[in-house]
Amino acid sequence: MVWDTWDRTRAPVHGIPGDMSGGVGGGGKGGLYIFFPPGRVINAGKSQHNEDQACCEVVFVEQRPSPRGWLSSREGGGEKGFYFHYWALFDGHAGSGAAVMASERLHLHICEQLRDLVEILQDPSPPPICLPHDTRAGSAEPNQVSSTEDHGEVPNDAVPRFHLEKAVSHESLVIGAIENAFKHMDDQIERERASQHLPGGCCALAAIYLMGKFYVANAGDSRAIIIRNGEIIPMSREFTPETERQRLQFLALLRPELLGKEFTHLEFPRRIQPKELGKKMLYRDQNMNGWAYKKIEEDDLKFPLIFGEGKKARMMATIGVTRGLGDHDLKVFSSNIHIKPFLSCFPEVRVYDLTQYEHCPDDVLVLGTDGLWDVTNDKEVAGVVMEVLMSYEPNDPCRYTMVAQELVVRSRGVLKERGWRLANDKLGSGDDISVFVIPLGGPGNYT
Amino acid sequence: MVWDTWDRTRAPVHGIPGDMSGGVGGGGKGGLYIFFPPGRVINAGKSQHNEDQACCEVVFVEQRPSPRGWLSSREGGGEKGFYFHYWALFDGHAGSGAAVMASERLHLHICEQLRDLVEILQDPSPPPICLPHDTRAGSAEPNQVSSTEDHGEVPNDAVPRFHLEKAVSHESLVIGAIENAFKHMDDQIERERASQHLPGGCCALAAIYLMGKFYVANAGDSRAIIIRNGEIIPMSREFTPETERQRLQFLALLRPELLGKEFTHLEFPRRIQPKELGKKMLYRDQNMNGWAYKKIEEDDLKFPLIFGEGKKARMMATIGVTRGLGDHDLKVFSSNIHIKPFLSCFPEVRVYDLTQYEHCPDDVLVLGTDGLWDVTNDKEVAGVVMEVLMSYEPNDPCRYTMVAQELVVRSRGVLKERGWRLANDKLGSGDDISVFVIPLGGPGNYT
Repeated sequence: MVWDTWDRTRAPVHGIPGDMSGGVGGGGKGGLYIFFPPGRVINAGKSQHNEDQACCEVVFVEQRPSPRGWLSSREGGGEKGFYFHYWALFDGHAGSGAAVMASERLHLHICEQLRDLVEILQDPSPPPICLPHDTRAGSAEPNQVSSTEDHGEVPNDAVPRFHLEKAVSHESLVIGAIENAFKHMDDQIERERASQHLPGGCCALAAIYLMGKFYVANAGDSRAIIIRNGEIIPMSREFTPETERQRLQFLALLRPELLGKEFTHLEFPRRIQPKELGKKMLYRDQNMNGWAYKKIEEDDLKFPLIFGEGKKARMMATIGVTRGLGDHDLKVFSSNIHIKPFLSCFPEVRVYDLTQYEHCPDDVLVLGTDGLWDVTNDKEVAGVVMEVLMSYEPNDPCRYTMVAQELVVRSRGVLKERGWRLANDKLGSGDDISVFVIPLGGPGNYT
Repeated sequence: MVWDTWDRTRAPVHGIPGDMSGGVGGGGKGGLYIFFPPGRVINAGKSQHNEDQACCEVVFVEQRPSPRGWLSSREGGGEKGFYFHYWALFDGHAGSGAAVMASERLHLHICEQLRDLVEILQDPSPPPICLPHDTRAGSAEPNQVSSTEDHGEVPNDAVPRFHLEKAVSHESLVIGAIENAFKHMDDQIERERASQHLPGGCCALAAIYLMGKFYVANAGDSRAIIIRNGEIIPMSREFTPETERQRLQFLALLRPELLGKEFTHLEFPRRIQPKELGKKMLYRDQNMNGWAYKKIEEDDLKFPLIFGEGKKARMMATIGVTRGLGDHDLKVFSSNIHIKPFLSCFPEVRVYDLTQYEHCPDDVLVLGTDGLWDVTNDKEVAGVVMEVLMSYEPNDPCRYTMVAQELVVRSRGVLKERGWRLANDKLGSGDDISVFVIPLGGPGNYT
């Protein structure tokens, strides 16, 4: 596991934990960060500019004690549970508060969600659809597929009641746990934002290794890719006003009051001027991927809900990402229109089964904030990975650090007269840059 | 171009038009169909069972006359326009009316939408964002990017007003035209359903070849794949209660009145019994892809909006597809709850640029209704395509007919004592089966 981050105004800072459980941190513009192995970043500089945060932990998920105690008494003593490995990047905006709190707490929320599933996930039989009264999920008998025959409450009426029963996998329980953990994290930020001073919000990208599988959860515009035998396997997609346009337009159509009479749910390729009323202009609505012409009406003069393209695309002229944590107080500039109803705190979770493939020491999972991906594409990242790894012995644990460092340095560029420039003379990233490089088949293991 | 269809109770019927403009039809359970080359299927059997319909046309899109006549007078005489090639399958349900009408009219709606774009699509410069007052789209000067400087109406105020202007491609105008054509088709079925006796609805899958590109538009559970050099390229995805669950749950959450107090927007793996109140059961909502446990409340005893899996998945216990044309009168059995608000008539359009690849005579686009795909997967279809084509000369136009026929016959199976059986002894398709096999690099061309 290797982490590297770039503070745009000073030197890069590297975090290289001694083992898988080493903690890491993230950096931001204008600050100087001190790294402490147990997983905390201390900003010794200008805290208002510290917007990238990171976390790496090994977390023990202890089975929740049964309220009735019948399981623990039956099973005998000793804590029951399992470990998961965790890496996450948080790219804050409008302040670092949400990113700092999320970096300190998201893994604990994931742990909390998994505590109810300890026995179920450790039992190879299919998860039970229904659990008994008043117990935690984890205190049910895992192989008890239906509880309706329990306790002899109801006579069997000889009708096959559950002929339509959907099979639910262990994997989908982990996905559900991660999804709900993001929601609980967001709720906590909402509750504590006043007392803890948590302005702004953050994108969150987390990789969880659990029982042979990587779960990559993304809410925002960070990105994860796996590089296996030189091949690129996308492990996330970005959530932006452009990629989520149809969901946002659909919501705006159904809840027009959220637009506050300032916005139209239609998209236009540019602003319309009042004098253009009656002319025909290209548009698209929540149902369309293509474009068509419509006659411009009064309502079309409002500002489009989604406007701009690429890195300049904005929702309600305010925000360039549509999923993440925080932003509970975010409003359209100089208005009382709230942005949060359009944002989602739920990640998309992708699963990679490590046991399905043979991995060599050059196979890695790369997590990066948009500071990396804005200037270095997947293929270039894969090239750097292969180039750097080749120059080190396969069993040298430093080699992954060197990849992360090289990715950050190349994306930052070199300070020239005309600003920070990449090797190809294009502008370097003006954003914070944080990168994890996680070996899939290298030295160390995740057990 | 080749079409083949299977009428489950009688012999298969083949339509082999003499050229690209030959018409085709579809067949259904229990009918006997007579094929007329100009593109009509006459059902000489039991019309109530005729549910698959098909159409194949070459359509001339004539530029719409300008209301001001300034363009036609300027350009001089002769009709301006272009041709598109068109193949479509319509898989009807609850009657054939919608499928028959769509097979007769959808291409005309596409033509109608394209008529306004004739000049724009033929001009290599980017489509204009805005068109002048009171004119059809096609009567603007195509290379007139902004009309705001027209007619000297407004003085140039020297401010770069459109520094954020999105580029819109010709391709995306065609996609928009096809999307809106589906909507107009659906509106026509709604208007004429009483007078024309158009019960039920239909899935629609259409392939349009226009200016070097195939546009494949799908609304429903039919499927299109390209087989190129033995490789399978998916050209559509299916829209079912399972694949569209989150869209449907989101709508139900925002418009609970559409559920009529009978349904819950949550999904459960099976029905819940009243005696299970207070227990914990697996569920997922509009935000989740995974599953989690929740305590069962009174509201959870309602029937789930989405229920079942695979071919048995249903929305509101009624319908197994979530996009298509028609179904305006469809209600939940024995209730006044309308299904239509949850259905979408909009297709997803995928584009394949024929000019980007070299094609050999064995490269084809296959369109099929679910009767084919339910029993024959993509790989098996590709196998049949390669196997059959290999046994004919590359310039024999019959070879594509033979592929379509073989696909239909294999998916139908052979009547044995225990019903229709496939070669692997599994049950053959119990549904209508219609297939188009369209050569991408074989004899004939699309110009």
